[in-house]
Amino acid sequence: MRGPLKIISGRSHQSFAEEICAHLAVQLAEVELITFSNENQMVKIKDNVRESDVFVVQTSCPPVSDILIETFLLLDALKHASAQRVTAVLPYFPYVRSDKKDQPRISIAAKLVADLFQTAGAGKFLTMEFHSPQIQGFFNVPVDQLLATEVFVKHFQQNYDLSNYVLVAADVGEAKQMGKYATRMDLPMAIIDKRRIGNSEKVLPAHIIGDVEGKDCLIIDDEVASGGTLCAAADFLKSKGAKTIRAAITHAVLSGSAMDKVNQSQLDELVVTNSIPLGDKAQQTDKIKVLTVAPLFAQAINNIHNGNSISVLFKD
Amino acid sequence: MRGPLKIISGRSHQSFAEEICAHLAVQLAEVELITFSNENQMVKIKDNVRESDVFVVQTSCPPVSDILIETFLLLDALKHASAQRVTAVLPYFPYVRSDKKDQPRISIAAKLVADLFQTAGAGKFLTMEFHSPQIQGFFNVPVDQLLATEVFVKHFQQNYDLSNYVLVAADVGEAKQMGKYATRMDLPMAIIDKRRIGNSEKVLPAHIIGDVEGKDCLIIDDEVASGGTLCAAADFLKSKGAKTIRAAITHAVLSGSAMDKVNQSQLDELVVTNSIPLGDKAQQTDKIKVLTVAPLFAQAINNIHNGNSISVLFKD
Amino acid sequence: MRGPLKIISGRSHQSFAEEICAHLAVQLAEVELITFSNENQMVKIKDNVRESDVFVVQTSCPPVSDILIETFLLLDALKHASAQRVTAVLPYFPYVRSDKKDQPRISIAAKLVADLFQTAGAGKFLTMEFHSPQIQGFFNVPVDQLLATEVFVKHFQQNYDLSNYVLVAADVGEAKQMGKYATRMDLPMAIIDKRRIGNSEKVLPAHIIGDVEGKDCLIIDDEVASGGTLCAAADFLKSKGAKTIRAAITHAVLSGSAMDKVNQSQLDELVVTNSIPLGDKAQQTDKIKVLTVAPLFAQAINNIHNGNSISVLFKD
Amino acid sequence: MRGPLKIISGRSHQSFAEEICAHLAVQLAEVELITFSNENQMVKIKDNVRESDVFVVQTSCPPVSDILIETFLLLDALKHASAQRVTAVLPYFPYVRSDKKDQPRISIAAKLVADLFQTAGAGKFLTMEFHSPQIQGFFNVPVDQLLATEVFVKHFQQNYDLSNYVLVAADVGEAKQMGKYATRMDLPMAIIDKRRIGNSEKVLPAHIIGDVEGKDCLIIDDEVASGGTLCAAADFLKSKGAKTIRAAITHAVLSGSAMDKVNQSQLDELVVTNSIPLGDKAQQTDKIKVLTVAPLFAQAINNIHNGNSISVLFKD
Amino acid sequence: MRGPLKIISGRSHQSFAEEICAHLAVQLAEVELITFSNENQMVKIKDNVRESDVFVVQTSCPPVSDILIETFLLLDALKHASAQRVTAVLPYFPYVRSDKKDQPRISIAAKLVADLFQTAGAGKFLTMEFHSPQIQGFFNVPVDQLLATEVFVKHFQQNYDLSNYVLVAADVGEAKQMGKYATRMDLPMAIIDKRRIGNSEKVLPAHIIGDVEGKDCLIIDDEVASGGTLCAAADFLKSKGAKTIRAAITHAVLSGSAMDKVNQSQLDELVVTNSIPLGDKAQQTDKIKVLTVAPLFAQAINNIHNGNSISVLFKD
Amino acid sequence: MRGPLKIISGRSHQSFAEEICAHLAVQLAEVELITFSNENQMVKIKDNVRESDVFVVQTSCPPVSDILIETFLLLDALKHASAQRVTAVLPYFPYVRSDKKDQPRISIAAKLVADLFQTAGAGKFLTMEFHSPQIQGFFNVPVDQLLATEVFVKHFQQNYDLSNYVLVAADVGEAKQMGKYATRMDLPMAIIDKRRIGNSEKVLPAHIIGDVEGKDCLIIDDEVASGGTLCAAADFLKSKGAKTIRAAITHAVLSGSAMDKVNQSQLDELVVTNSIPLGDKAQQTDKIKVLTVAPLFAQAINNIHNGNSISVLFKD
Repeated sequence: MRGPLKIISGRSHQSFAEEICAHLAVQLAEVELITFSNENQMVKIKDNVRESDVFVVQTSCPPVSDILIETFLLLDALKHASAQRVTAVLPYFPYVRSDKKDQPRISIAAKLVADLFQTAGAGKFLTMEFHSPQIQGFFNVPVDQLLATEVFVKHFQQNYDLSNYVLVAADVGEAKQMGKYATRMDLPMAIIDKRRIGNSEKVLPAHIIGDVEGKDCLIIDDEVASGGTLCAAADFLKSKGAKTIRAAITHAVLSGSAMDKVNQSQLDELVVTNSIPLGDKAQQTDKIKVLTVAPLFAQAINNIHNGNSISVLFKD
Repeated sequence: MRGPLKIISGRSHQSFAEEICAHLAVQLAEVELITFSNENQMVKIKDNVRESDVFVVQTSCPPVSDILIETFLLLDALKHASAQRVTAVLPYFPYVRSDKKDQPRISIAAKLVADLFQTAGAGKFLTMEFHSPQIQGFFNVPVDQLLATEVFVKHFQQNYDLSNYVLVAADVGEAKQMGKYATRMDLPMAIIDKRRIGNSEKVLPAHIIGDVEGKDCLIIDDEVASGGTLCAAADFLKSKGAKTIRAAITHAVLSGSAMDKVNQSQLDELVVTNSIPLGDKAQQTDKIKVLTVAPLFAQAINNIHNGNSISVLFKD
Repeated sequence: MRGPLKIISGRSHQSFAEEICAHLAVQLAEVELITFSNENQMVKIKDNVRESDVFVVQTSCPPVSDILIETFLLLDALKHASAQRVTAVLPYFPYVRSDKKDQPRISIAAKLVADLFQTAGAGKFLTMEFHSPQIQGFFNVPVDQLLATEVFVKHFQQNYDLSNYVLVAADVGEAKQMGKYATRMDLPMAIIDKRRIGNSEKVLPAHIIGDVEGKDCLIIDDEVASGGTLCAAADFLKSKGAKTIRAAITHAVLSGSAMDKVNQSQLDELVVTNSIPLGDKAQQTDKIKVLTVAPLFAQAINNIHNGNSISVLFKD
Repeated sequence: MRGPLKIISGRSHQSFAEEICAHLAVQLAEVELITFSNENQMVKIKDNVRESDVFVVQTSCPPVSDILIETFLLLDALKHASAQRVTAVLPYFPYVRSDKKDQPRISIAAKLVADLFQTAGAGKFLTMEFHSPQIQGFFNVPVDQLLATEVFVKHFQQNYDLSNYVLVAADVGEAKQMGKYATRMDLPMAIIDKRRIGNSEKVLPAHIIGDVEGKDCLIIDDEVASGGTLCAAADFLKSKGAKTIRAAITHAVLSGSAMDKVNQSQLDELVVTNSIPLGDKAQQTDKIKVLTVAPLFAQAINNIHNGNSISVLFKD
Repeated sequence: MRGPLKIISGRSHQSFAEEICAHLAVQLAEVELITFSNENQMVKIKDNVRESDVFVVQTSCPPVSDILIETFLLLDALKHASAQRVTAVLPYFPYVRSDKKDQPRISIAAKLVADLFQTAGAGKFLTMEFHSPQIQGFFNVPVDQLLATEVFVKHFQQNYDLSNYVLVAADVGEAKQMGKYATRMDLPMAIIDKRRIGNSEKVLPAHIIGDVEGKDCLIIDDEVASGGTLCAAADFLKSKGAKTIRAAITHAVLSGSAMDKVNQSQLDELVVTNSIPLGDKAQQTDKIKVLTVAPLFAQAINNIHNGNSISVLFKD
Repeated sequence: MRGPLKIISGRSHQSFAEEICAHLAVQLAEVELITFSNENQMVKIKDNVRESDVFVVQTSCPPVSDILIETFLLLDALKHASAQRVTAVLPYFPYVRSDKKDQPRISIAAKLVADLFQTAGAGKFLTMEFHSPQIQGFFNVPVDQLLATEVFVKHFQQNYDLSNYVLVAADVGEAKQMGKYATRMDLPMAIIDKRRIGNSEKVLPAHIIGDVEGKDCLIIDDEVASGGTLCAAADFLKSKGAKTIRAAITHAVLSGSAMDKVNQSQLDELVVTNSIPLGDKAQQTDKIKVLTVAPLFAQAINNIHNGNSISVLFKD
C-alpha cells in the first residue's frame, strides 16, 4: 500500500543505519551532506523519493547542533521532493532530558525540538527510551517509542547469576525507570538519596534507601552524560559495602571526561546500547559493553512500512 | 495594558472561584449554565467581555465529562465574544494522570485535553501540580503551573514536631514528587516496593525500601483517587512498625468508596488542598484536613493580569 | 488503494454498528471502553490499525458528554496508533441544533464540536440529516451528509394511501425541511404559526397557515427532543379539524417525559429512524415505528472505502 | 487600549465608508488602488498603520471577483504592515447564498470565502444579515452580524398603517426570515408554495399557503438578485387577489435585467438598504426606497473599537 | 499506488489542458462552470473524484480575478469531494511578478496567492518559470517548477545560425535569467542600463553595457506584459547598431496595446510559449512564433502521478 | 500601548546589541546562556518578561548551528514566559543565500529557517539586506527589512571623489543589487561574465560586460563569504585595466581563508557593515573598513515599539 521503502542516513550514526539496512536487505539511499566554509550546510537527496516511504536515521551526538540542523534540512528536502511519508528515526532523541520547566523562563527543549522536526517535515517518529514516558505527549503525530528493557534483561539473565543482585537508582527522581526492570527480573531495589551539602550548588549521595551491603549492584538509568552522577553513585555504593557494581544504561552520551571518570570509578562494568556512536571511547576502557538495538529498529521499520503492529517491540 | 479583569466560574467549583474573587476584590462575572432535558448544555456569558482579560475557573470533578464540555463551551463563547485573552484556570487538570502511552493504542488523554482546550479558545493556562512536570510540554501556549509544596511544607513545619518523621512514597514510580519535600524539610525518605502477586492483575506492597520502624510517616503524593493505593500503603507501613501515618496529597479526588477506605485504614490524617471540591466528604471523616490554595491562585491571576512575575509562586 | 476496512463502535449505539458490519460482512474491531471510579474514561483499541481505513460509529445520546469524550479518546487513540484514515460516523451529530448564535455570547456548539472532533483526529465525517444544510460549512475536511428522505418517502408511499394527506411544519422556521418532501410526494403543505402569548416566555401554536381540516396530516421534522413542540402541534392540528396526525421525524431524541407526552397527545403515529438508540422507549408506546438507516450507512461506508461516488445516496 | 482607529475603503462602496467616517468623525485612511493593463491589481496603504485598529470596508458587488481580490490584497498588506488588528467590514458578504452543498461536488463558497479572508489577514468580521444564521459558524474568529430588522420594522411602523398587512415569504425555504418580522410587527403570515411544472427545470408559484385576498402584502427576504423570484411572487399574489404588494429586502443585488422586471411587475414598492451601492439603478424606477444602515455600522465599529457590547445592535 | 489520474480544466486555457490530455491519452474530466447574472460563479465537478489523483489545469489570463476565484472554487470542491490529492497546474502563475515588497505597505501578491490556493485545497503545485526562483520558497507544499529554457534553446539552435548572436537583458534587474541561456548556448551577453530621465517617473534605456553593434540580438525575459519595456529595448538596440533583434520570452501576457507596440517596434521576431492563450493576438502580427510546452507538462504530470523523478524536466 | 521594551542578546553579537541599547538608552535584559559538556544548550531569561515587547538580537555567524539552536531556545523560552510580542532581530539572516531550489531535492534553507523561527516563537522579524528581496515572501508574519544602501552611499559620497567610478557586479546573477546604487549615485555599471572552463566544475571570470579600463571600480554585493568570488573579480578587473578596486558589501562573512585572499588580492579596499562580528579579522588587514548599522537598527526598534512608520529607514 505504501510506496517503496527508502532509508536515509544523516552523518551522525551511519554504521547504525547500515546495520538496519543489512537487516532489511535494502540499500541506503544516496545523499550528499556538505558543510561550506561559512559553516552553512547543504543536503542533497540523490535518489528519487517521490511517493516513497522514507525513514531518516539520525541520532543526537556531537556536533549536536550541526546534526539537528542537518536533520531539519533532510526532512525539509524530502517533504518538498514529494516523499509520501517521512519518518524521523531517532534512537537517542535530542534534548530528551530537557523535558520540564523546572526553572522560570527556560525552554522545554525536547518539546521545542519535537515541534521543529514537525515543522521541517517529519510526519512520524520512531525513537527509543525517552527520559520520561510523558514525552510522547509532546508530539502531534504518531510516535513509536521502542524500549531497551528487553535487550538488557535478556543480556543480564543469560550472562549473569542474578541471585545476589539488587537494582539501584542513582537518584530518587530516576527510580521509576528501575521499576519495570525489578518486575521483569524479580529483584529487590535500592535508591541513593542525594542531598545538597551546605550552601553549595553541589548535590551528593548522602544516604542509601534500601540494602546494598554485600550485594551485586546493578544501576539502572536511561542516560549517562558526563558520568559524574553514575561514578559518584558507584563509589558511594562501594563505600556502603556493595560487592560489585554494574550499570545498564540505554544512552551512552559519555561527554567530556566521562571515560576517565568511568575508568577511575568503582564501577565494574557499564553496559550500554549503540543508540549513540561510541567512536573510540570503547577503546579507552575495558569496562564498557555495547548491546546492539539495530535489529529492534529494523524490525520496527519493517512493521511500520508494512502496516503491522509493533506493540510487541515495546513491551516493558 | 490589558483590558479589564473578569473572573468566570463554571459550575465545578464555584466556592473556589468566589474565594479567588474575594482576594482580588472583584465580582464574579455573570454566566448562565443550562442543561436541557436532552443533556445538551448551553452557556451564556451575561456580562460584556469585549477586550477583557478573562480567567475561567474550573476544576475536574464529577460530573467529569459534563464539566469538560461546559468548559469547552465557555472558552468558545468567550473567544467569539471578542475577549482579549482567555486563560483557563484549572486547579486540578482533567485526565492529568493519563500522561503517557503505557499500553498500545490508547490516548494520552491529558495531551488530548490540552489540545481540545486550545481549540476551544484557551490562550493560556494556570493550573497546579501536574502528575508529572513533563505535562507542561503538552501545551503550545504559556502554562503556569503552581505548586502546593510551599503550602504543605509550611503547614507541617508550623504544626508538627518533625524530628521523628520520614517521608514515604507509596510506589517507586512516585518517588520523584517526594524529593523536593525531602530537600525542603530535610527529612529522610522511604519507598514502598509494590509487586505483582502470582498471576493476578493485582499489585501489592511487598517490601519497604528504607527505614520506617518506630517512625512518624508522611506519605507524599499528588493525587488520591479511589484511595486503594494510599490505604494499602498506610496499612503496610503500620505492619512494618510505623508509629503514625499521615499523608500530604494535593488533589483529593476521593472517588467511589474512598472515604470508607480512609476511615477503615491505618491512616491517621489526610491533608489535602481544596483544588477539588470535597462536598460532604469532609463530614464523613475526622481524619481529613483541607488547606486552601485559593490565595495562591488569586495572587497568580493578579500577577498575570498585571504583567508581574509569578515564578516566586511556584518555587519548589 | 486504501488499507483494510475497520469498523469501531463506541458504546452509544453498538447494535447500529453491528447492523452496519452485518451488511458489510466485516467484524467489529475489538475495543476496550473503561470508566474508572473517578469518572475518567480510557479507551483501548485491541486490534492493530496501522495503515487501516477506520470508521468510528458513534451517535449522540445519553450520557451525551461521556459519549463525546469517549469519541475524542477513540479518535485520538486511532490517530496516534498510525491509522491511515479515520472517519467519524455520526448518525445523529452532537449539538446539531446549536447551529447559530441567536443570543449574545453563546457558543455555536455544533461548530465547536466539529472543530474538537477534527483536533482529536477525525479526517472525514459521515453523518445524517443536519438540522440545517449549512452545517456542512462548519467542517474543514470532507463531510458526507446522508438524508433520510428516501427512506421516509418510500415508507409512506408503500404503506399509506396518501391522497388525502397534507404535510405540516410545526413552525415557520422549520418549513424548509418539508419542501423536499412536498416535491417528492407531490403533496400540499401547511405551517403552524406559533406566537408568544402575552408576556410569557412561552411560544404556542396560534394559527394555521394553509388548510388541514378533514385532512390526514404528516408532520415533517428533523428531530424530536422533549416532544413538547411536536405534541402541541398534533393537538393544535386536531383542534383545527385534522382527521389523522402522523409525524415523520429523523432523529428520535425523545428526552425527559417525551414518551408520556406522545402517548397522551393526539398524535396517531410517530415514524422515526434508528439514528439514535430508542432503548426501552419503543416498548412504552405502540404509536412509534422505527425505520432502519443502517443499510444506508453501510452502503456509504462501502463506497467511501472503495472510492465510489455516494451522491446517489443523498439525493433529496 | 487598542491602537488608533483607522477606516480603509476598497473601491466597492466608498460612499458607504465615507458615511461611516462622518458618523465617527474620522477621516478615511488613504490608499492607492491600481489595476494594471494585465488586469493585475496593486493596493498600497498610504498611511502608517502600525499598531492601529483597522477596519476595511468593502461590500460584494460588480466587479465581484475583482473586489474579492482587492479585499485579499488589502488585508494582506495590512497584516504585513504590522496593523494591530484588522477587521473586515462586509455589509453584504460575498457568496452568502452559496451556503450549502445541495448538489454533489460543489463548493460551499461562502465558507471558502470566509477561509480565504482569514488566510489573507482578517482577524475579525463585521457584516449584516447572512442568508442563514448558521453562516456565523463558518468562521474561526469573532464575527459580528448586524441585522436590518430594526431598520425595516421602524420604517414600516412609522410610515404605514399596517392593520390590513400580511407578511409573505416567496418560498417555503425562506419562511424562517419572516418569522422574526411577524413577531416584531404582530402580523399574520403567508407562504408561496412553488412547484416544478411538468418535466421542466423551472419552479413556479403554484399555491398560496395562508390568506392574501384583499390584503396588503409585504414580502420579506434577505436578498433580491435577478428579481425573477420576487416579481413572479408579486404577480402571483396579485392574481390571488392581493390589494397592494411591497417588499422589504436587505440586500439589493438587482443584477441583469432586475430593474426592468421590477418596473413591469405588480410590485408596488421595493424597500432595500444601502448594503450594496445601487448606482444609477435608483434612477430607473420610482418603486425603490433605500434605507441607510451606515449609522448602524458606525455604531458597531465604535463599540468594537472601544470594547463596548454591540449585542443591542443585532437584536432581532 | 495513487488513485486514478483525473485532469480538470478551468476555462482559462482549455486547449492547453486538452493538449496535455492528448499526450496522456486520458479524457478531460467533466465540469460545469457557471457565472450567474450577479457575477457569482459556481463550479460543479461532474465526474466522481473520490480517491482520485486530480490535476487542475488553469493559467492566469483575463479575466484574471474571475479565473482566480474559479480556481479557488474548483480546488475547494475537489477537496470536499474527497479527492485523494489535488495538484494545481499553473503554467503562468498568477501575480508572479508581485514577488517582493519594494514599496511600503503593499502585498507580496504572489505569496498571498500561493497561500490562498493552499487554503482552497491545493496540496501540490506544478508551474513554469517563476519570475524569480525564490518564489518556490513561498509554498508550504511541494511545488515543481518547469523551465522553458530547453524548449527555447533547442528552437534557436535548430533554426538559426547563432554565430553572430548576443544575448540581451532589457534591464540590469533581469540579467539573471539570461545567464543560464548564455551558458547553454555559449553566447556573449549585453545589458541595457535604464535610468530615470530628469524628475519624471519614467525610466528609459540610457546606456548599453556590453557590445551589440552589428550583432544579432536575442532578448531574454520571462514575461512580456504591456510590451513597453521590450519594444523600447528593441528600438534602443537598433539605435545602437544592432543588426537584428529577436526576443525569447516565456510568458506572453501581451496586455493592452502590446500587439500594436510589437508591430511598430524594431523587433524582428517574438518567440513565446503557449503558457498563456494568445487568442486572436497571433493573427495581429506575423512577428510572433509560439512554442508549445504542453508536452513538457504532460510528461511532468505523468511522472508525478507515477512517482517518477521530474528533475530531468527542469534542468536549466 | 505595547508593554515595556526589552532587548535580549544571544551570544553571537553582543557588542551590536549593546550598541543598540546605548542608542535606545535601555539596558540589555539579563540572560544565562549555558552549554553543557554534552553540547546541549540551556537558556534562561533572568528578567521578568510578562507582557513585555521583547526584541532578540542575534546574527548568523560561527558557530552557526549552535547560534541557530540558541535562538530557537530563546524564542521558545520567551513565548512560554508570556512575553507580549517577540521580535527576532537578525542583522544577517541565517542561510540567506539558500533561497532557491536550483538543484533537485535540496532544501530552500532560508525558508525552512524562517518557518523554524516562527514555530519557536518569533511573531515578527527585523533584518537587513536579504540576498534577494523575494525572501520577504517566505514569512507569514510581518518582517521589516532594513537596507544598507543609505549607509554605503553616504559613506562613498562623503569620502571619495566618484567622478571616475564605475559600479561592478561580480556576476550577472548579482547585477540586480547594483541597480539601486547606480541610480542613487548616478554611476555607470559593468558586469563580470563568468563561464565554466572546459569540463571543470569551476566557474571563472571570462569577459567584462561594460567598460572598466582606467576606472575606479566599486564592486557591489550583499555578502562576501569565502572571498573567492570577490578576489577573483578584483584580480580580473585589474587585468582588464582597472585603476583602483573597492568593494561595498553588506554582510562580511569572511569565512575560511578569506582574509588571506583579500590581503593577497588586487582589492584596494573592502567596506562592510557590522551586521556580523568581525572579531580579530579586522586586525588581519588594513584593507577593511567597517560601517556601523546599529543606529539604523536602534531607530527601527524604537519605531516598531512605538507604532511609528519605519519605511523611511528602508528607502533604497
